[in-house]
Amino acid sequence: MSIEQDVKAAATRAREASHELALATRAVKDAALIGMADALIANQDTILAANAEDVARAEAGGTEPNIIDRLRLTEDRIAGMADGLRTVAGLADPVGEVVRGSTLANGLELRQVRVPFGVVGMIYEARPNVTADAAGICLKSGNAVLLRGSSSARSSNAAIIDVLRDAVEAAGLPADAVQAVPGDSHDSVKALMRARGLVDVLIPRGGAGLIRSVVEESTVPVIETGVGNCHVYVDARADLDKALSIVMNSKTHRTSVCNSAESLLVHEAIADEFLPVVIEALQGAGVTIHGDDRFTEYDGVQTATDEDYGVEYLALEISAKVVSDLDEAIGHIRRFSSQHTDAIVTEDQTAARRFTAAVDSAAVLVNASTRFTDGGEFGFGAEIGISTQKLHARGPMGLPEMTSTKYIVIGDGHTR
Amino acid sequence: MSIEQDVKAAATRAREASHELALATRAVKDAALIGMADALIANQDTILAANAEDVARAEAGGTEPNIIDRLRLTEDRIAGMADGLRTVAGLADPVGEVVRGSTLANGLELRQVRVPFGVVGMIYEARPNVTADAAGICLKSGNAVLLRGSSSARSSNAAIIDVLRDAVEAAGLPADAVQAVPGDSHDSVKALMRARGLVDVLIPRGGAGLIRSVVEESTVPVIETGVGNCHVYVDARADLDKALSIVMNSKTHRTSVCNSAESLLVHEAIADEFLPVVIEALQGAGVTIHGDDRFTEYDGVQTATDEDYGVEYLALEISAKVVSDLDEAIGHIRRFSSQHTDAIVTEDQTAARRFTAAVDSAAVLVNASTRFTDGGEFGFGAEIGISTQKLHARGPMGLPEMTSTKYIVIGDGHTR
Repeated sequence: MSIEQDVKAAATRAREASHELALATRAVKDAALIGMADALIANQDTILAANAEDVARAEAGGTEPNIIDRLRLTEDRIAGMADGLRTVAGLADPVGEVVRGSTLANGLELRQVRVPFGVVGMIYEARPNVTADAAGICLKSGNAVLLRGSSSARSSNAAIIDVLRDAVEAAGLPADAVQAVPGDSHDSVKALMRARGLVDVLIPRGGAGLIRSVVEESTVPVIETGVGNCHVYVDARADLDKALSIVMNSKTHRTSVCNSAESLLVHEAIADEFLPVVIEALQGAGVTIHGDDRFTEYDGVQTATDEDYGVEYLALEISAKVVSDLDEAIGHIRRFSSQHTDAIVTEDQTAARRFTAAVDSAAVLVNASTRFTDGGEFGFGAEIGISTQKLHARGPMGLPEMTSTKYIVIGDGHTR
Repeated sequence: MSIEQDVKAAATRAREASHELALATRAVKDAALIGMADALIANQDTILAANAEDVARAEAGGTEPNIIDRLRLTEDRIAGMADGLRTVAGLADPVGEVVRGSTLANGLELRQVRVPFGVVGMIYEARPNVTADAAGICLKSGNAVLLRGSSSARSSNAAIIDVLRDAVEAAGLPADAVQAVPGDSHDSVKALMRARGLVDVLIPRGGAGLIRSVVEESTVPVIETGVGNCHVYVDARADLDKALSIVMNSKTHRTSVCNSAESLLVHEAIADEFLPVVIEALQGAGVTIHGDDRFTEYDGVQTATDEDYGVEYLALEISAKVVSDLDEAIGHIRRFSSQHTDAIVTEDQTAARRFTAAVDSAAVLVNASTRFTDGGEFGFGAEIGISTQKLHARGPMGLPEMTSTKYIVIGDGHTR
């Protein structure tokens, strides 16, 4: 069989499994999740051995140390994956939730209830823990999942998926609810993106290039995740102590994540006071600043280009600009933001209200670090990714975002 | 300028307008909608004259009478368009609605609120009343709209859009919130489908061919609408009087619509009793039946192929089959349904519960006609279309379905 046929066959098996999974009770699904968690621990030697192969291959190929760190599994990290599955078991089942309902004028009873998508395709990079996380979230939300991790993690992912499938089956659910996408080449990703009718939604997680290619090439509906060119705007009436700690936390708490800040805007009324303080603190933390001509008056600040304002550094770098008023800040954010997360620091209620209304991003924050845009921080208990599109789900996606709905209408011989 | 540049320029103007529209209060939007309704009536002579051009062109080109009927405007139909706009003015504003909210453990206040998509592209066929309906629904939900009707209605649509734009502007909102897509060729549709980043969502409304081509070619996210291969399954324990009236209503109440029934399944336990009755009634109403070998025992019933079971007739035709049990009915529906609307007729609570759980369609009905799947019938007040996809919206789409959401997070200097 060709790769395309292999992928279609896997998707067809996933669809069959999804019918059974959609009807599974919460009790059965939770038992499967606990079983999956236990199985990861029980089989950790096998998983670690497979992971060692991936790490050795990556090291031999000269992969960067930070990528190898993301690839590497340890007993702690496997325990973390197991804990994640147990947490998902403890979350409410989104399937069957009545979103709205009413009795119509003619007596028809109308309910809109959450149902699984059916078959979800995940395309993701490097970290093998995503394999267990995604499998758990999809299973709990009643979806079969086709997992396509990066080829650098193929041995780890295959080992994890084997363990999870056995546990799913032991719980009385179809093993094909959790499958690896067959094949290792780009052709298999391509086949997945063309499996419209068999796959209900594709979720790419990874770098901007991966996400763009999936969005452009897929005929299966896509939920776009993750690229974050996030701004912190320090308003004329900001509390500068709060502003400093929010800027520093947003930029330096963790740099490789989509909700870290990449750009700083400062109102000119406080620029003389705030710039020396924030520049010293950022540079003291090792952050390279790419600024406009107000910022470049200070030592060590480099000149920012439009490219700097548009880029997601994911590193100890930040673009910076002084703006003449709130509207210029909003205009700059409209032009350059990836509409993931943008924050204002201000004590001015009117400015806060205007900023939150006019800035159209998945999360708009007032006097808080951009790092809070996160399913865990929002209290969702589990997160499959952060959507930066407007269709279906926007911002951190938990279990309810992994469902569709249907209308159930009950009558008694009703006709029009 | 090329057509592509023209379309991009229009989309850019729409995006500018969308920023203003997103911040408009309900009062201003409702005043605009009332003004639009009044303007349609005040300018009906101009609109009717433009429509007469379209009708004359269609007649000269030998267009079928039923298509010409859909194209033709009258004073009554214009009054209907105006009434539709007034109804939308009376509906609650979805923008700003708090979908959920909580105070997190650390004191952060979290709200998920409805916001407009931004720019909506509508691609639709024949009926010029869709122009006013779509403009009204988009304006109320805070979205700028790019309207691309069929070229057969181009004069009517241009006249309607001119009138609406003037009314929007008179109400103090940007006229570019309502625009025709420039150009008349397929290239302009193509440019619209490629305007990712400028257009937030495309909604095609029309025949299966139109919808398929938009879904396949668009890089802008699409909400798929309308193809309905709807089933009525008459169970072993159906009340046969209810069954007969539901089958007849589902099939013959109106044949050209997506929620009409296209296929009839009958449990074998009641086949001997029900088949002669339903066949006589259907044939008496002029319906051609394409049946399996149980049905073809009766005079005038033609032999059904798999193609018959898969097709949306939109005509006085129906496919029909006797099934041995509920599971065979569910299996048949899974294979052939377009997942729009499927109904069971039964007095058996267990069968009804299993059918509504196992049949994965936008609407699943018990003892009611398939014709009820409709925004008006569901009490939404306005409907932009019926989604048959699982992402974002499923089933009839009213005003809330024309919005996205964003998270607003309020802190007091919060950092992680």
